[in-house]
Amino acid sequence: MFDRIKYFLIGSPLPTQQIGRQRLNKIRALAAFSPDALSSIAYANQEIYLGLAVAGSAGLALAWPIGLAITTLLIIVALSYFQTIQGYPSGGGSWIVARDNLGLLPGLIAATALLIDYLLTAAVSLTAGVEALASAFPALWGHRVIVALIILVVITVLNLRGLRETGTLMAIPVYLFVAVYLAMLAYGAGRALLEGPGSFVVAPPVTHPLTLFLISHAFATGCTALTGIESISNGVPVFQPPESKNAGRTLIVMALLMGVLFVGSIGLTQYFAVMAMPQETILSALARRIVGQGPAHALIQIATLLILAVAANTSFAGFPRVSALMAAEGFLPRQLAALGDRLVYANGIVFLSIATGLLIIVFEGNTHALIPLFAIGAFLAFTLSQAGMVVHWWRERGRGWWLKSIINGLGALATGAAAILIVVSKFIEGAWITILLIPLFVTLFFSIRAHYRAVAAELSLRGMPPSLRPSPPTRVVIPISGVHRALVEAMNFAQSIAKDITAVYVELEPGAGERVREVWQDWWPDVPMVIVPSPYRSIVGPLLDFLDETDRQHNDGQMATVVLPEFIPAGWWQGLLHNQTALLLKAALLYSRRQFGQRRVIIDVPYHLRR
Amino acid sequence: MFDRIKYFLIGSPLPTQQIGRQRLNKIRALAAFSPDALSSIAYANQEIYLGLAVAGSAGLALAWPIGLAITTLLIIVALSYFQTIQGYPSGGGSWIVARDNLGLLPGLIAATALLIDYLLTAAVSLTAGVEALASAFPALWGHRVIVALIILVVITVLNLRGLRETGTLMAIPVYLFVAVYLAMLAYGAGRALLEGPGSFVVAPPVTHPLTLFLISHAFATGCTALTGIESISNGVPVFQPPESKNAGRTLIVMALLMGVLFVGSIGLTQYFAVMAMPQETILSALARRIVGQGPAHALIQIATLLILAVAANTSFAGFPRVSALMAAEGFLPRQLAALGDRLVYANGIVFLSIATGLLIIVFEGNTHALIPLFAIGAFLAFTLSQAGMVVHWWRERGRGWWLKSIINGLGALATGAAAILIVVSKFIEGAWITILLIPLFVTLFFSIRAHYRAVAAELSLRGMPPSLRPSPPTRVVIPISGVHRALVEAMNFAQSIAKDITAVYVELEPGAGERVREVWQDWWPDVPMVIVPSPYRSIVGPLLDFLDETDRQHNDGQMATVVLPEFIPAGWWQGLLHNQTALLLKAALLYSRRQFGQRRVIIDVPYHLRR
Repeated sequence: MFDRIKYFLIGSPLPTQQIGRQRLNKIRALAAFSPDALSSIAYANQEIYLGLAVAGSAGLALAWPIGLAITTLLIIVALSYFQTIQGYPSGGGSWIVARDNLGLLPGLIAATALLIDYLLTAAVSLTAGVEALASAFPALWGHRVIVALIILVVITVLNLRGLRETGTLMAIPVYLFVAVYLAMLAYGAGRALLEGPGSFVVAPPVTHPLTLFLISHAFATGCTALTGIESISNGVPVFQPPESKNAGRTLIVMALLMGVLFVGSIGLTQYFAVMAMPQETILSALARRIVGQGPAHALIQIATLLILAVAANTSFAGFPRVSALMAAEGFLPRQLAALGDRLVYANGIVFLSIATGLLIIVFEGNTHALIPLFAIGAFLAFTLSQAGMVVHWWRERGRGWWLKSIINGLGALATGAAAILIVVSKFIEGAWITILLIPLFVTLFFSIRAHYRAVAAELSLRGMPPSLRPSPPTRVVIPISGVHRALVEAMNFAQSIAKDITAVYVELEPGAGERVREVWQDWWPDVPMVIVPSPYRSIVGPLLDFLDETDRQHNDGQMATVVLPEFIPAGWWQGLLHNQTALLLKAALLYSRRQFGQRRVIIDVPYHLRR
Repeated sequence: MFDRIKYFLIGSPLPTQQIGRQRLNKIRALAAFSPDALSSIAYANQEIYLGLAVAGSAGLALAWPIGLAITTLLIIVALSYFQTIQGYPSGGGSWIVARDNLGLLPGLIAATALLIDYLLTAAVSLTAGVEALASAFPALWGHRVIVALIILVVITVLNLRGLRETGTLMAIPVYLFVAVYLAMLAYGAGRALLEGPGSFVVAPPVTHPLTLFLISHAFATGCTALTGIESISNGVPVFQPPESKNAGRTLIVMALLMGVLFVGSIGLTQYFAVMAMPQETILSALARRIVGQGPAHALIQIATLLILAVAANTSFAGFPRVSALMAAEGFLPRQLAALGDRLVYANGIVFLSIATGLLIIVFEGNTHALIPLFAIGAFLAFTLSQAGMVVHWWRERGRGWWLKSIINGLGALATGAAAILIVVSKFIEGAWITILLIPLFVTLFFSIRAHYRAVAAELSLRGMPPSLRPSPPTRVVIPISGVHRALVEAMNFAQSIAKDITAVYVELEPGAGERVREVWQDWWPDVPMVIVPSPYRSIVGPLLDFLDETDRQHNDGQMATVVLPEFIPAGWWQGLLHNQTALLLKAALLYSRRQFGQRRVIIDVPYHLRR
């Protein structure tokens, strides 16, 4: 039944040989790598606006300079990553660059930061997307959590089916978003020239003084606009040759688009003195101001939701890939490195989906509450990756290495400073959670690897000479609940492998054992049957005690083998009607009272019932 | 860890020999058997009031005659059960009486009706108790579901610990309730004499016409006052000798108390023209009218909650007992008949608790919404039990058998008519649910017994001569994931029991198998190792296919035995870091692709790791 549901949702399994990558031209590559970066303006603008509006119109007047400062940072980071693309034509994710050049610990920190940010990208993109949609359809505002969760489930199922982030389906929302926003900004700029600057209908109330802290806070939250800019540098090998050149050009186009959309929307918002309603995003308010309330406004909001959903989807490609890389090296549970039926890292996808869903539920679908946790991971990864590039150029000392070092060094400094600013200004609001999690996870990853290494060492045969040492004849203990056909099968098997057999009956009601013994002696008069009383009505406990006792008495360093007669009903629901003693007993024998070096063999002799 | 939590909540296990029953004197017996019956007035009064108030003051004027009609029914039913006590001194529950005298199907219907009503008693008593409490402490009104669930958890844990319904702890709330209510009614009667009748401050608005349907509906919901009256007849053997005489007298006292409390409270409510506030029960309003708002009112409400909680608790004694009786005869899963650590039917208690909790959650803690489902089971059981008594007297033909038959016949007719009235008048509101469930459950119970009988027949050795036919030498297939210490243990064991051994390696990545084979040949050059490619990366599927294929090729009617090398990490959480392939494989071998007569032996050779 489970199989059928899975087949319906996920589809039939794909053979391993179908794995492979198609090369992408620049148009498709831009669509594949830019959604996260381009869609960032949705929440970055919103956070700058919310951060400044509390200081009234004087605060909002700072949106433009802050937007320009962030754009400068964008240029620096884009140049830095342009160089990473040249330096790592095989793909230079933060984890690889930091590990290669700075060492294992920085690499692991970068990878952890990346994983956390993938998770937050998924959560923030979904909540921001739903807020964009609810700005056009106010009836949805009260149901943002459930709408976000529904989209999450759809994305999860699509990814488990093996959706390619490079497909045409993914490209449509990206170009729709770019087209719609560029058109809106152009039309808005035209209206701005004709109409002149706007002024606030009602001056925004001042609830906080305009402090330096408030300004840096707005800058720090606005830095979320840069998240996702690193994605092209991870994926250079996917481009058509010449890979580095094409990837570099695509990065430049993407950075230009990011800058235009970000600066354009912030500039027009300030020029028209736009304010948002309580249950509306500032981008929605801007769109309403420019195109009016109507189908055009709804289209803009839907395009925003779609690109944000695609951005969330990029996490579903990135997170499982990075966690599979780490799992392959033993830092994460091995299951994360296993390719599922549809050639995707299904365990990573499911894990990310559950974690994202929990984040959305805990933070009640509120983007503003999630943002303080966000961007720290991205900027930490930026910094480590750029610092790694400095070392890379310095080690390589190729042509113009010092200029390249300076550019990446500038990038590292700028993103490092931004990271510190983000942590300091948003520490109390939630940044502490991320700061706490990173070292916790890094420690966990090291201890997982330590466990795998210890297990490998314990299981290793190195130094052991090949030996053919069959075990001595085995002693068998066979727990019985009565004399029936399943037991006959089990006894036949036991007698075919051992001479020394003892049957045990755990007696719950006094006298029941003797009644069983009478039948027993008809069938197996020469096999001893022991009755173990169980005053506390437990079956497993007295049986384990009996086994321990028998082993002690024999004192041959061997543990008795347990043969379990087990009858299996025809349907799964019938299993509920039986006591499942065999199952409990097997679990207890395998997992409880275990001791290194013990080896209690368990033999299951199933008897399949007709019904 | 689980064991420790269990020990903390439930306590240490008790030996079977501690089971036993103390005899009760009449004072203790009344406390043990009456809570359900006495507390019924809490919701019965409330429902009569709610049912009539919609027809305004003309409607409420009918409360008194309806109360008298229900009291008449009470007298008839009490007399009927007085006779059951004489006829069944060994305890005459509906299930026993109906089955003995009417046959298996009526008996099973009575038992099902009883089980459903135990469940509803638990749910209704808890919600009504919390409503009584919230009438005194209005802040709780919005949190009725959670308060009811907390009390439910407390009752569940106490019952799992083995709380005796006959203990002193249970007697206190019963006598507190009786004392407090009798005092209130006496004081109220005194005030009534002095003050004369009251009149409505505001006339209740008329929203429904006063139809015959409305009146019968109020009568039907008021019949819930009778639920619980049968309990003494179930427990006759617990009384001190002479059992029947003492039980009969206790029943008379209980019926008198029920009548006085019910008629007294309804009479005073009408005399004073009491109306309840929106978030208050009518009994609370009556108490406020008599003793004023203050500590006395709070005490009355707390006493109401306490007896209702004790009434819910009687379900936790009754439900597991009846379900254990039915399970012992094979009508319910056997686990329900197993005595738990603390000598209680723990599975029945847990099942009842979960079902009650779900009812409370689904019906949002609203007694009024639950009532239409209630009392049908009780009245159906009353009718079947009384009808059974008629047959009983007729068969026995002892002294005065015809008078006894007439009394029980009258009881059967009256309760049967009431049952029909309840079903008809509350059908749409929810009675249909109960009406639907009873035949469904009866069918389910029969099919459970059919399953157990079929299994017993399949397992039976009757007609099979004792035979000693050891199996032919076994063939062994050993799935391997690599050559390591756990495998050495498993191979040693395999070689000690079989000559024909084949190792199978399921190859996920092309080439991996050959690398394993090189090591394999160093260790076991004379044991064949087969490489099975797995293009879909599944381990279990190809392995099962290989086993089927091997068996077909050998064509000796035997299935190969599977020896599983399994390493077990030291802690449970480390298990999460491994693929658990062995576990999946065992489940697949046992439960999937099974076929009657197949017998694939599974041998588990565990290797316990140090860490």
